[in-house]
Amino acid sequence: MFFHHKKLMYTVRVRQSDPQLATLMLEQFGGPQGELAAAMRYFTQGLGECDAGRKDMLMDIATEEISHLEIIGTIIAMLNRGPKAVQSEAMLEAEDMRQLGQNSTSHTEQILYGGGPALVNSSGVPWTAAYVDSIGDPSADLRSNIAAEARAKLVYERLINITGDPGIKDALRFLMTREIAHMKSFEKALHSMQPNFPPGKLPGDPAYTDLYMDMSQGGQDLQGSWNSGELWERVTDREAQAALDGGDGDYGVGLTPREQAAEDAMTLRTLSDPALRPMTGAELGAGPGSGALDLPPREP
Amino acid sequence: MFFHHKKLMYTVRVRQSDPQLATLMLEQFGGPQGELAAAMRYFTQGLGECDAGRKDMLMDIATEEISHLEIIGTIIAMLNRGPKAVQSEAMLEAEDMRQLGQNSTSHTEQILYGGGPALVNSSGVPWTAAYVDSIGDPSADLRSNIAAEARAKLVYERLINITGDPGIKDALRFLMTREIAHMKSFEKALHSMQPNFPPGKLPGDPAYTDLYMDMSQGGQDLQGSWNSGELWERVTDREAQAALDGGDGDYGVGLTPREQAAEDAMTLRTLSDPALRPMTGAELGAGPGSGALDLPPREP
Amino acid sequence: MFFHHKKLMYTVRVRQSDPQLATLMLEQFGGPQGELAAAMRYFTQGLGECDAGRKDMLMDIATEEISHLEIIGTIIAMLNRGPKAVQSEAMLEAEDMRQLGQNSTSHTEQILYGGGPALVNSSGVPWTAAYVDSIGDPSADLRSNIAAEARAKLVYERLINITGDPGIKDALRFLMTREIAHMKSFEKALHSMQPNFPPGKLPGDPAYTDLYMDMSQGGQDLQGSWNSGELWERVTDREAQAALDGGDGDYGVGLTPREQAAEDAMTLRTLSDPALRPMTGAELGAGPGSGALDLPPREP
Amino acid sequence: MFFHHKKLMYTVRVRQSDPQLATLMLEQFGGPQGELAAAMRYFTQGLGECDAGRKDMLMDIATEEISHLEIIGTIIAMLNRGPKAVQSEAMLEAEDMRQLGQNSTSHTEQILYGGGPALVNSSGVPWTAAYVDSIGDPSADLRSNIAAEARAKLVYERLINITGDPGIKDALRFLMTREIAHMKSFEKALHSMQPNFPPGKLPGDPAYTDLYMDMSQGGQDLQGSWNSGELWERVTDREAQAALDGGDGDYGVGLTPREQAAEDAMTLRTLSDPALRPMTGAELGAGPGSGALDLPPREP
Amino acid sequence: MFFHHKKLMYTVRVRQSDPQLATLMLEQFGGPQGELAAAMRYFTQGLGECDAGRKDMLMDIATEEISHLEIIGTIIAMLNRGPKAVQSEAMLEAEDMRQLGQNSTSHTEQILYGGGPALVNSSGVPWTAAYVDSIGDPSADLRSNIAAEARAKLVYERLINITGDPGIKDALRFLMTREIAHMKSFEKALHSMQPNFPPGKLPGDPAYTDLYMDMSQGGQDLQGSWNSGELWERVTDREAQAALDGGDGDYGVGLTPREQAAEDAMTLRTLSDPALRPMTGAELGAGPGSGALDLPPREP
Amino acid sequence: MFFHHKKLMYTVRVRQSDPQLATLMLEQFGGPQGELAAAMRYFTQGLGECDAGRKDMLMDIATEEISHLEIIGTIIAMLNRGPKAVQSEAMLEAEDMRQLGQNSTSHTEQILYGGGPALVNSSGVPWTAAYVDSIGDPSADLRSNIAAEARAKLVYERLINITGDPGIKDALRFLMTREIAHMKSFEKALHSMQPNFPPGKLPGDPAYTDLYMDMSQGGQDLQGSWNSGELWERVTDREAQAALDGGDGDYGVGLTPREQAAEDAMTLRTLSDPALRPMTGAELGAGPGSGALDLPPREP
Repeated sequence: MFFHHKKLMYTVRVRQSDPQLATLMLEQFGGPQGELAAAMRYFTQGLGECDAGRKDMLMDIATEEISHLEIIGTIIAMLNRGPKAVQSEAMLEAEDMRQLGQNSTSHTEQILYGGGPALVNSSGVPWTAAYVDSIGDPSADLRSNIAAEARAKLVYERLINITGDPGIKDALRFLMTREIAHMKSFEKALHSMQPNFPPGKLPGDPAYTDLYMDMSQGGQDLQGSWNSGELWERVTDREAQAALDGGDGDYGVGLTPREQAAEDAMTLRTLSDPALRPMTGAELGAGPGSGALDLPPREP
Repeated sequence: MFFHHKKLMYTVRVRQSDPQLATLMLEQFGGPQGELAAAMRYFTQGLGECDAGRKDMLMDIATEEISHLEIIGTIIAMLNRGPKAVQSEAMLEAEDMRQLGQNSTSHTEQILYGGGPALVNSSGVPWTAAYVDSIGDPSADLRSNIAAEARAKLVYERLINITGDPGIKDALRFLMTREIAHMKSFEKALHSMQPNFPPGKLPGDPAYTDLYMDMSQGGQDLQGSWNSGELWERVTDREAQAALDGGDGDYGVGLTPREQAAEDAMTLRTLSDPALRPMTGAELGAGPGSGALDLPPREP
Repeated sequence: MFFHHKKLMYTVRVRQSDPQLATLMLEQFGGPQGELAAAMRYFTQGLGECDAGRKDMLMDIATEEISHLEIIGTIIAMLNRGPKAVQSEAMLEAEDMRQLGQNSTSHTEQILYGGGPALVNSSGVPWTAAYVDSIGDPSADLRSNIAAEARAKLVYERLINITGDPGIKDALRFLMTREIAHMKSFEKALHSMQPNFPPGKLPGDPAYTDLYMDMSQGGQDLQGSWNSGELWERVTDREAQAALDGGDGDYGVGLTPREQAAEDAMTLRTLSDPALRPMTGAELGAGPGSGALDLPPREP
Repeated sequence: MFFHHKKLMYTVRVRQSDPQLATLMLEQFGGPQGELAAAMRYFTQGLGECDAGRKDMLMDIATEEISHLEIIGTIIAMLNRGPKAVQSEAMLEAEDMRQLGQNSTSHTEQILYGGGPALVNSSGVPWTAAYVDSIGDPSADLRSNIAAEARAKLVYERLINITGDPGIKDALRFLMTREIAHMKSFEKALHSMQPNFPPGKLPGDPAYTDLYMDMSQGGQDLQGSWNSGELWERVTDREAQAALDGGDGDYGVGLTPREQAAEDAMTLRTLSDPALRPMTGAELGAGPGSGALDLPPREP
Repeated sequence: MFFHHKKLMYTVRVRQSDPQLATLMLEQFGGPQGELAAAMRYFTQGLGECDAGRKDMLMDIATEEISHLEIIGTIIAMLNRGPKAVQSEAMLEAEDMRQLGQNSTSHTEQILYGGGPALVNSSGVPWTAAYVDSIGDPSADLRSNIAAEARAKLVYERLINITGDPGIKDALRFLMTREIAHMKSFEKALHSMQPNFPPGKLPGDPAYTDLYMDMSQGGQDLQGSWNSGELWERVTDREAQAALDGGDGDYGVGLTPREQAAEDAMTLRTLSDPALRPMTGAELGAGPGSGALDLPPREP
Repeated sequence: MFFHHKKLMYTVRVRQSDPQLATLMLEQFGGPQGELAAAMRYFTQGLGECDAGRKDMLMDIATEEISHLEIIGTIIAMLNRGPKAVQSEAMLEAEDMRQLGQNSTSHTEQILYGGGPALVNSSGVPWTAAYVDSIGDPSADLRSNIAAEARAKLVYERLINITGDPGIKDALRFLMTREIAHMKSFEKALHSMQPNFPPGKLPGDPAYTDLYMDMSQGGQDLQGSWNSGELWERVTDREAQAALDGGDGDYGVGLTPREQAAEDAMTLRTLSDPALRPMTGAELGAGPGSGALDLPPREP
């Protein structure tokens, strides 16, 4: 279960109200790479995990991420605090309001959410669990976690770059650093599980594991360790790329007689007859100068 | 630009119609770990990429994934082919229809999509670009790609486990294997970029990089390379976990006089007065035996 | 900040695996009336709240709701635990798998989420922050919270009605009861704020506050305290219902000369000319027996 | 403004409760081709329309569609009426409930929505305004309306095919027929606007209007009026298909010196070096037999 | 299967970086009328199509649309190229960043997506398969395709109107023109299928096919070919509009005795008693001057 | 069924075009607290309602809300009317267009929706039925309705505060006032149903009804009627908060032998071995100075 402590995990000092900056910070509150996504990712993995060590680690980090969510949410609340009160008490003229923030999400934050931190991204899109990519297998989920921390680190880096307020910059740097620490933990946990490649249990089919399919051609192809060398067999020929199995590249299904009869009827009923030269809505709408109606009438 | 070849990349032989199985296959057509998500992930990264080698690799693999989307979509179309025709020609009794598939997504496929492959997952949820987690930095995106391939590999593995049709099983094994090959390419490309850790450009704050926060307590804590050893400084004390910066763990913002006045007014106007013992809607609704109306009247 | 304790807030004993029941329980994990929605509702309100008493209460209850989320998530994990392992180790035949759960969400849970609890509802729809209706004003938000607890109570009641497992039934009854306790707190907090009706700051326009608009007619109209009595002035006459302001019920906007010129041009260009009797795509497609082509040709 | 009449536009007689059938009917209540989508499509177009004739027609049909929404919603309510009451009064055993409907959406209807008609499709996906494709130009919107009515007609046809209850079948046939009538109105309105092709105001570029791009090759190409004849110039040669403008098919942008310097720095910093043959996470995870772990152990 | 050629289908020359314009262009990349929606529409139809001619045409056009997606994505990438690099290398001051784009989506593109083209519309809403309206019947789908091309043509027309960069304008005109060409193909294919009206297989009920329901009254009704003339029977009388079937306009369902008993119990338990004049939360919250508590107490 | 009257329920006079203000007004057209959400909430409840009085009231108010939707939609249409025509006739230069609205939603309205009112909120997010929280029980739904009216009232209050146009301000005040009137009706209807607390039918468990869980500690705890007094038993002790049932706070499920065997196998296969000190991708990517690359090169 969870307990709450009234202290934040990191002290937050904000210089002054700035609803525009608040809007950008939403990215890490209700955005896809934000702290709610991180917390829910590890929390749901932890609930389903059987390995004691991983479960403990996942709950440790999930709990920390909820505490981070509180930090970033507090920053947003502080940046909106003044305008929220001014608007609430109707001390605001229309002209003021429009200058509160020069972007629509900032307006939405004030009008719809009353200046409160809302679980939306910096464009106003509500958070969705579609952001959580846990699939219940550690050899995949740990890799997903490593990647998610990398993405979150980058978004913090970008927010730091555009923030002038030293108190916020400081808190963001803390949050960014913790993503790096989490990456390290997930890397260690992944490689403490041996083997972990390929992920899951089934092996690949050796016939197709080492092929590099050169699908984009017509210019210079650069070769590196990812597509050449002894690990790879390069397939460049267009015809060889099709039907790699050596078959005819075609498809089919066995139909029952009733199904076949239905398909025959449907095909006949819905045939686009290549022999017709029909007049169409385009000719009807193309206007008097188009000559469309000069066409001979459709003959069934 | 793209060209289309009428041959599939892998021959598809389906034994017989099976709309229920078709529904499960949707997971890799319009699901979060499916081929459209993969194709769009690499395609959007490729468009924004400046490094010639990575761009070429991303377009190679994106193109292959669209070809995979065609394979899995063809499998779904074949599995639905018979029922689609039968329903279309109204050769179907109500009772039949309900047995077509025993789950709602299967029904939706027939009624809403007419048996065509639709870009939804196996629960009928439409595909959304929220599944695509590209953020425009290669040290993060390559890790995301590795993780995405791992997840897709697992979903194929699960689909193989539940499929009895040998032609489909065969095609799924091909598709699963290619995810492994792509993982290898993305790993090579990531480590051909040195350094790639931490991702992005800004370094972390050394004060917080090596802390392991033991947030989940009250039972046995297992220690491994992910939370102990010389790489880590473990923080277990509850009070020490709060306000890691050494501050007071509090928060605040500087308000202008107008803002402060508004906040004071708002706070007063909306005070939940602890001194009141108000009657509420709960008492009004609790019924005659609840004694609610025995409360002394509210005194303002 | 948040701490985690390895004990649950309520002990969970599940008799046996049952992925179908797990699917129904998802309603309170990732559904609109579930615990994540509750937790996020109070947590975001708490972050933006200035009143010390309300803020404390909101964080108390938010923290409890996250602990409830852990309970319901653990129930789901237990119900899926066996099938997850069986599937993961590929000990499962195709036939088995289809019987795991007879509905599509249950399948999706196994194939996409690997048996882990996912933040989706019982139809597989991912949780969205659109479920959170906090708007940053306590006279509205407290009412929203009361209503949300009422809805959550009902969903637990329905889940209890369909559950046979005594350990789950017991835990659900606990969770249901806590929603009642929270309702009481929110009612008290709402009425500790005086006045709280109408919500917000602006008064209504007395001319329209007491009108009851009888918009649905043509049958028997039942009268009760909600639409009759001295509180209400009933408006039944259809003509009187239109343009309640006493105006003409019309609308308009002042246009600049340039805008007016553009509108005139657009109106002319896109006129659907009532004088025409045009042939259309419907006639073209109605088939040879339809007489469509017997129509005299369109004269421009 | 709108008035409500307690009579339905069409009488609804339902033989008996059937929550499974109710779930399928949801497709036309809260599904993409359903009556809410139709009503909102025409209503929003009507609000923005300046042409008096079209505006009147759009409001006529929008109002009828809301009345249709009431009919289909009433059918769903009737089909769920018994189970709703039984569940509400807890007269239902668990076993019963699971048999109420054999698909997850049916369960969700009972547990989440309490048997009420909800604005979701037959898979439980909530209705979204993303289904409404009005764009504010009559030459496009009228075509969209024609297409939308065609789709709705088909979904009603499919629902009729699977319904055994004569009262419902009768009401569905009425609803289906009205879609045909609306198609006729929209066709007439479209062609009463001359010219209407191409839609909008800007003409196309004559150099590209008549090209048919033969992008799918490698099998038999069937020719019909849609891709051959004097209206079309067929482009089959792969090289000719690229860079149709006659340019080099390349792309570029002018950068300022500061931008160019940044791009050079970024390119260098993030180069995936083709000369490296790096060890990767794949080798680390490939297991003892893979040769990867033959490396001497890392020395911290 | 698909192949990729490194040349674009149309050469793209962009004058200079302009992230604001890039944001507007997103409408045709990840917006509802954009190229991904077009490509997926035709691709999914093609996979499910049995008619050889239509299938070939659908794959031809789908492939062209993916190539168009690449063109518009490349335009967006070029417009963001400079700012992406500047931000990535942290050469940007906070003030600069805010001026990069004056709208929130532009900010989101930089912070969340790192300047890469993302599959969102110009408001930042992620692309969803809910935009794809294929339903698996050619007489409906071809009409949907005609309408979709009309809408896309209009959006390109609007983008051309606001673009000053001649290279982009030129590419947009090409893309717009191709939509016109596709409209022509789909019109020909639709009318090569005879009959195609009404769409689908079931005929309408002659009793209701020709009624025009005059639902919007109270002002001037304009008459044109869409609602008058010999094709139409106009129904204007309000009472005649109700219960068009000649029934009572009522509804009902047969209930089993158990269901009926449950409904009776539920109705009694949840009766809103018209005889009560209850005190409510509104009176409790209306403040001391409201006289609310002067009401006589509720008598059960 | 529904009828339409060409008069609005309230006359709308708009001074001049203002697409930016139009964008803000969208909040009550296609936003979560807007008129469509209100109308659909009451309409769907009304369809499922058995109590004659409540059903009549719900249809009365639903019909009024659709009439309100028409008012707010007309305001938006008027504010966009001039720019729509100017853009449509291409009388607009690029520079102009960018100044039409300074936020992205405003641009989207012009480019995607052509100036028509679209069912999106002020950030451009499409309306979703996820906003409708009806669950089919009157003791919950009436509370939800009260809360929804409170929220809508607040959003109108905020829109009034930022509007300078007297005609719009006047219409908004009317709409805001009607929300207050609806709140009163719903309050009366709720309390005309006795008892209504706790909502639904099942009573709570007395052991947990009166506990107040003090989950947020570490600062000053304020006590009021919501958490203290004779109604409440306060639980503050951290250990007492865990496992409130008096159990061990643990969890478990009975597994079949096959399930247990699978779980054992899975656990062993996926063990994160605490004894390992593995090298990871982090070390591989940490750069030459990190010591990681001092390892001897991999030998394949």
